[in-house]
Amino acid sequence: MKKTSKNPITNKNYQIPEILDDSLGINNFLSRNNGKPVVVVQGLGFVGAVMSIVCANALNAEYAVIGTDLPSESSYWKIASINDGFFPVVSSDPKVEEYYLKTKKKDNFYATYDNFAYQFADVVIVDINLDVQKESSSDYGLSGFNVDLSSFKLAIRDIGQNCKENVLILIETTVPPGTTKIATEIIESEYIKRGLSIDKVKIGHSYERVMPGPNYIDSIQNFYRVYSGINKISADSVENFLRTIIKTDEYPLTRLGNTNSTEMSKVLENSYRAMNISFIVEWSRFAEEAGVNLYEVVNAIRMRPTHKNIMLPGIGVGGYCLTKDPLLASWSRQNINGDGNEGLMMSEMAVSTNDKMPSYAFNFLKSFYGDNFLKGKRVQLLGVSYISGVGDTRFTPVEIFYKELVKNECDIYLHDPYVSYWEELGLVVNQDLNTLNNDIDIVVFSTGHSEYANNKNLIKQLGKLDNLLIYDTIGILSDKEIYTLSKNHTVKVLGRGDI
Amino acid sequence: MKKTSKNPITNKNYQIPEILDDSLGINNFLSRNNGKPVVVVQGLGFVGAVMSIVCANALNAEYAVIGTDLPSESSYWKIASINDGFFPVVSSDPKVEEYYLKTKKKDNFYATYDNFAYQFADVVIVDINLDVQKESSSDYGLSGFNVDLSSFKLAIRDIGQNCKENVLILIETTVPPGTTKIATEIIESEYIKRGLSIDKVKIGHSYERVMPGPNYIDSIQNFYRVYSGINKISADSVENFLRTIIKTDEYPLTRLGNTNSTEMSKVLENSYRAMNISFIVEWSRFAEEAGVNLYEVVNAIRMRPTHKNIMLPGIGVGGYCLTKDPLLASWSRQNINGDGNEGLMMSEMAVSTNDKMPSYAFNFLKSFYGDNFLKGKRVQLLGVSYISGVGDTRFTPVEIFYKELVKNECDIYLHDPYVSYWEELGLVVNQDLNTLNNDIDIVVFSTGHSEYANNKNLIKQLGKLDNLLIYDTIGILSDKEIYTLSKNHTVKVLGRGDI
Repeated sequence: MKKTSKNPITNKNYQIPEILDDSLGINNFLSRNNGKPVVVVQGLGFVGAVMSIVCANALNAEYAVIGTDLPSESSYWKIASINDGFFPVVSSDPKVEEYYLKTKKKDNFYATYDNFAYQFADVVIVDINLDVQKESSSDYGLSGFNVDLSSFKLAIRDIGQNCKENVLILIETTVPPGTTKIATEIIESEYIKRGLSIDKVKIGHSYERVMPGPNYIDSIQNFYRVYSGINKISADSVENFLRTIIKTDEYPLTRLGNTNSTEMSKVLENSYRAMNISFIVEWSRFAEEAGVNLYEVVNAIRMRPTHKNIMLPGIGVGGYCLTKDPLLASWSRQNINGDGNEGLMMSEMAVSTNDKMPSYAFNFLKSFYGDNFLKGKRVQLLGVSYISGVGDTRFTPVEIFYKELVKNECDIYLHDPYVSYWEELGLVVNQDLNTLNNDIDIVVFSTGHSEYANNKNLIKQLGKLDNLLIYDTIGILSDKEIYTLSKNHTVKVLGRGDI
Repeated sequence: MKKTSKNPITNKNYQIPEILDDSLGINNFLSRNNGKPVVVVQGLGFVGAVMSIVCANALNAEYAVIGTDLPSESSYWKIASINDGFFPVVSSDPKVEEYYLKTKKKDNFYATYDNFAYQFADVVIVDINLDVQKESSSDYGLSGFNVDLSSFKLAIRDIGQNCKENVLILIETTVPPGTTKIATEIIESEYIKRGLSIDKVKIGHSYERVMPGPNYIDSIQNFYRVYSGINKISADSVENFLRTIIKTDEYPLTRLGNTNSTEMSKVLENSYRAMNISFIVEWSRFAEEAGVNLYEVVNAIRMRPTHKNIMLPGIGVGGYCLTKDPLLASWSRQNINGDGNEGLMMSEMAVSTNDKMPSYAFNFLKSFYGDNFLKGKRVQLLGVSYISGVGDTRFTPVEIFYKELVKNECDIYLHDPYVSYWEELGLVVNQDLNTLNNDIDIVVFSTGHSEYANNKNLIKQLGKLDNLLIYDTIGILSDKEIYTLSKNHTVKVLGRGDI
């Protein structure tokens, strides 16, 4: 049987070629883009796909851009879709579709699975994933984890076996500090095998600060960048390249001393944020115990410029970065850079604490109904995405909450204005607030989408029902809304002990 | 023998009265200030003394201000000095002396030990200390702690036994959340004993954000305030009072729902900061191991508005607040508000980590010289204060560093432009950079005073010596200075692995 790969957005099936040779396609594309410098983006995920169209619409250069990914069931559809007229990332940022259509018009963006492409590249941008294998304990807290660099190393070797001698390799993947040095050793050993000069190796590291959502493109093109190179020539080459795709006059570049530094900078950024979130977890419980409205308190504290970054309580942390980057750092300290023993305990603890947040949030339901009386309750979840304003369900804390509800034999209804299909769980999600089920017992505000805030219709709709438990896990309800809803419902807000 | 109490600034000795009756002094003062509302400030420490002169120079009111403290050897000098023309707090803020002299001119500020004063008060501001009893393990990390509310309760009872029925009691002391409620019970029980109406009890809580240093007065008068009351009348009264001493048009007041909330807000603010500092400790070591300049990395990260509050590495945390406030919070959760078991683990861990920083910093010296070869080394400490620009040695991390040097039988020379006498250790401190001892082996930058930054003379002076170990624990040396000094010295910077 022939293997296929399905685009989950369009549902279109693409047949994976049996003979993996796309040299003709690549050659044709390059001859149509004769004379343009070639940028190959390795990895067509949330970063790589968007990075490709940013490069293909560079501010002051004309590139021929080739995106590469694997010809696997889970990835091939991205390659085929790009060439077929469908961009593989859905976004609330209209610029994403606009940029993609521009590349179609200019015909300067092509996707392939064939490493034949690397030999033409002037720049290769590495945007492949590097995951952490987590082990979780029964309450979803972290109990152990591992990082496996082997696929990453293979991808780098693939470049080294095929690239031009004077290519610039720019690693954007979030990696354990020290990884670019490992990549450099791999590239150098391939250069030696191929009789190329290792003095010519140019490798840099620069991390993106991509935020899926309404400013997706701007988060690449109009934002501060940090970069480095394995030597001065590499760093200069990265700088020259970044200047062609980023508005560096408004968002100046920052060069750091070595590649360990930029790698560390990225995971430190995200660890800082993860830690800030985890810090407030204990205080949420404390506030509930002490009759305090923690939202009110945090907002009062945020008036101080030195305390602006203090976080609000919530249901938990999701997404691809904050849930793993502190672990990449700790793993590096243990396995690459450190003395082989000590990790980063506080950063690991932050991840572990954050991982437990959804089940802590869930515990309220258990304590409210008693262990056995939750069974059969009909629960409406408002929001399944991990963050407001975005349809991204990767590692969403709502998933753990949902699984707890399933374990307790609840009937669950899903709503999210940004998600029609919850990929990780294979579930259809209602996107229309006007068609919520009325026959429910519990309503959970689980994502802070603006559609749920100050929504008079929604409050009116809920007001018509009787005797609900309304559980706001993200502090989206105003005091006035809580007052209105409390007339015929029980309202509970996570982190508030004053109601 | 008669007991005396010495002003450590002027060295003047004051005899403590044997018969503790200052009714005449108080009566005389009040008759000279006839008709003015009376504010009594309980506690003449770093906050209370300065709060007193702010009240005596209120923006839109004329108060008669009485400061009270205990007639003990350690405190009586403050009372006597204030009445004798010497303000008990030395500050780099010229406004402090200016405000004090204004009160002398107006004759509306008096200090006493006699609780006779409370019966005249329209407002009593509670500014007494509430300390944490810490137990430290051998490497100075926290191993246990306790909070003893008994003196605080006695001070509150003293007010309740003597105050007018319609007094406003405003607690400013940083307390474990729940303490104002405890104070309220004490006041109510005294009202009942005295036949006063407990309906008339007015108590509020508002925390100061005093920063000793060049903006001492402004940190009270020109800064955001958070407040609350035990009921609406109390909160309104606090608001009306604060409006007379704070520029509330520029720095609006924030009223929170109950006294637990403002108490929690204060300790949460400081816990957040303590945690932010402790977070970077592990990363300092990681950076050193990985050849990274953590200062450069943190500065790159701070360009993001969401990451502005990330901290730089350093020798440790000192001062009166960050070293104890997270523990007040954790103690409250365990003993006043919580379920009697769980504290705030992350906040406790932050204090413990920060407490260990100076001995971690010190360990470098040990590893550099080897365990036994540190003995007899002559060490110049540059800075003994816990923070730059201020002469405040309370809980300074340099104290632990100093004690480690003593334990290792080093000869130690002290310098600090803001400290002439290190009170806690009873040591004289050199204030003149031009008279540093030349016969030294080690120079430690231990406080980030601006006098040490970009100081060409200092670098020249050090450059003339030979073969020093220069240890910068706070990242004050520029790359250029490090380069210059490295010609004939060894330079080490905490948190930098790139040099």
